Amino acid sequence: MNKIRIGVDLMGNENSPQDLIAALKELTPSPHIELILIGTDEFKHHSNPFPYITAPEVIEMDEPPLAALRKKKKASLCIGMRLLKEGKIEALVSARNTGALVSSAKMILSTLTGILRPCLLTLIPTKKNPVAVLDVGANTQVQAKHLVQFALIGTAYQQARGIEKPIIGLLNIGSEAVKGTSEHRLAYHNLQTIEHPTFRFAGNIEGTSVFDGNVDVLVTDGFTGNVFLKTAEGIATMILDRIHDHIPPNEFKKFQSLHYAEYPGALLAGVKGIVIKCHSYSTPRGFTNGVLGAIALAQENFIQALQDKLSNEIT
Amino acid sequence: MNKIRIGVDLMGNENSPQDLIAALKELTPSPHIELILIGTDEFKHHSNPFPYITAPEVIEMDEPPLAALRKKKKASLCIGMRLLKEGKIEALVSARNTGALVSSAKMILSTLTGILRPCLLTLIPTKKNPVAVLDVGANTQVQAKHLVQFALIGTAYQQARGIEKPIIGLLNIGSEAVKGTSEHRLAYHNLQTIEHPTFRFAGNIEGTSVFDGNVDVLVTDGFTGNVFLKTAEGIATMILDRIHDHIPPNEFKKFQSLHYAEYPGALLAGVKGIVIKCHSYSTPRGFTNGVLGAIALAQENFIQALQDKLSNEIT
Repeated sequence: MNKIRIGVDLMGNENSPQDLIAALKELTPSPHIELILIGTDEFKHHSNPFPYITAPEVIEMDEPPLAALRKKKKASLCIGMRLLKEGKIEALVSARNTGALVSSAKMILSTLTGILRPCLLTLIPTKKNPVAVLDVGANTQVQAKHLVQFALIGTAYQQARGIEKPIIGLLNIGSEAVKGTSEHRLAYHNLQTIEHPTFRFAGNIEGTSVFDGNVDVLVTDGFTGNVFLKTAEGIATMILDRIHDHIPPNEFKKFQSLHYAEYPGALLAGVKGIVIKCHSYSTPRGFTNGVLGAIALAQENFIQALQDKLSNEIT
Repeated sequence: MNKIRIGVDLMGNENSPQDLIAALKELTPSPHIELILIGTDEFKHHSNPFPYITAPEVIEMDEPPLAALRKKKKASLCIGMRLLKEGKIEALVSARNTGALVSSAKMILSTLTGILRPCLLTLIPTKKNPVAVLDVGANTQVQAKHLVQFALIGTAYQQARGIEKPIIGLLNIGSEAVKGTSEHRLAYHNLQTIEHPTFRFAGNIEGTSVFDGNVDVLVTDGFTGNVFLKTAEGIATMILDRIHDHIPPNEFKKFQSLHYAEYPGALLAGVKGIVIKCHSYSTPRGFTNGVLGAIALAQENFIQALQDKLSNEIT
């Protein structure tokens, strides 16, 4: 079995790289996994047992992403993307902002064949199985054709997780086919009439019933999906913080990934490589959760599986 | 002190009118409050201690709202709106769908002077004071000028609740001024540069931090606001149902209004009358919570206060 190498961009998280390194050291070591850290020179020798690649340039949080990426090809994010492209790592984890992450992935990795727009996909817990939600932030405005493609990407993702014919829901403000914008109505129609679908379209679904767990994939534009995700995180965090002491640990654990500090990150789906985006405000534990997610996807050889599924669907 | 009369539309809720009547009977009676029920003839004599107005026509859930309203002027909703217009009741509570409610209010009551679009406003709990969120569903797509007006309506609403200079946040996917659609960016600019504002604009706010309670008013379009509200309700319901037995009753109470069955409803703001919209799926207790909200607004003479505030702001 080949070693799985995960690139970890230490920059862009609100925690200092040494705190992230300390958390990464606590992950159970496996001889089949190697973490390769990428960061500025000052953290290289900070009791660091991992291979370390020095990034001489830093992208600041307030820099316009595209300009910064063109100028700073030796920033940790760009170095990570190139390692991924060259096959020197199997996945990259970064807490960089969405704009920088999507732009650098498109520029350096390029998109999978047939993909119109890469999107951010994340799993969130429900009363039953977790639901894959996409897009949670890469595309502020989308057309019906993008929503349909998100359904196909979500289907491939859940199939890779073992669900043979995933159930798809379109996030909307009512169940009737006429609800939402004209793009929602067109997407509804197209998802309903697609020939030989590899999914089952359950129609529109509202924010209240997503958590019943009756759909495997929730399709939405990146603006609404981002609000959906952050609202779920915000309210779960408020309630869990308030009642933390009263809940048995096993119940608490079920909702832990909704606590935004521990949110395991989102997959940038549709580019040629496994890229996991963590929140800039995720805790060291949230960050290591993202690394664990990257390892799981790399072990499944997810990109190949996704490309195979998509080439059957997208023409 | 004049009697406050609240009209209650018994139709359109998933619970039968007799269950709603039973719940309404449990409200503490006050000599200053009179509930006037409106429903079909069959429920008139069902151990009903309240004045009752018979509505001979029924709007079905799946009827296109505008056509139904034109055809069925003797439906309970239309009768309620006319009572409100004629000053025979001080507020109307209904669980009718948003389309029917907004259309009939516009047609029968008309909008307050200067209002471009009526919107749905609801209070949700945070770690500090409740935040007024608008629009939560009346306008699927809006322009910047509508968002700015929602800020003014929300300001007037929170001022009526005793907050002298409310803090306004614009629901967005990041805090930077460039985030969101072009309408968000224009609304951000206009809210920031408005002259002599009666509010303080705190900029963009994300779903995660709304619940910190640092803004008094959260401004958004009706699509995003509806997803925001229903997501908050959905996740709160999932968590509260799962851990209900573990939480002390006083903690549970704080989040009760987020449990969608008990959600007290939304105010249709911007029309000439107090109209409260409950969910069609609210429980009898959620429905009576809506009635209590209507009583509170009627006691404050809210519409006059809103019109006074708005006439100073909107030109």
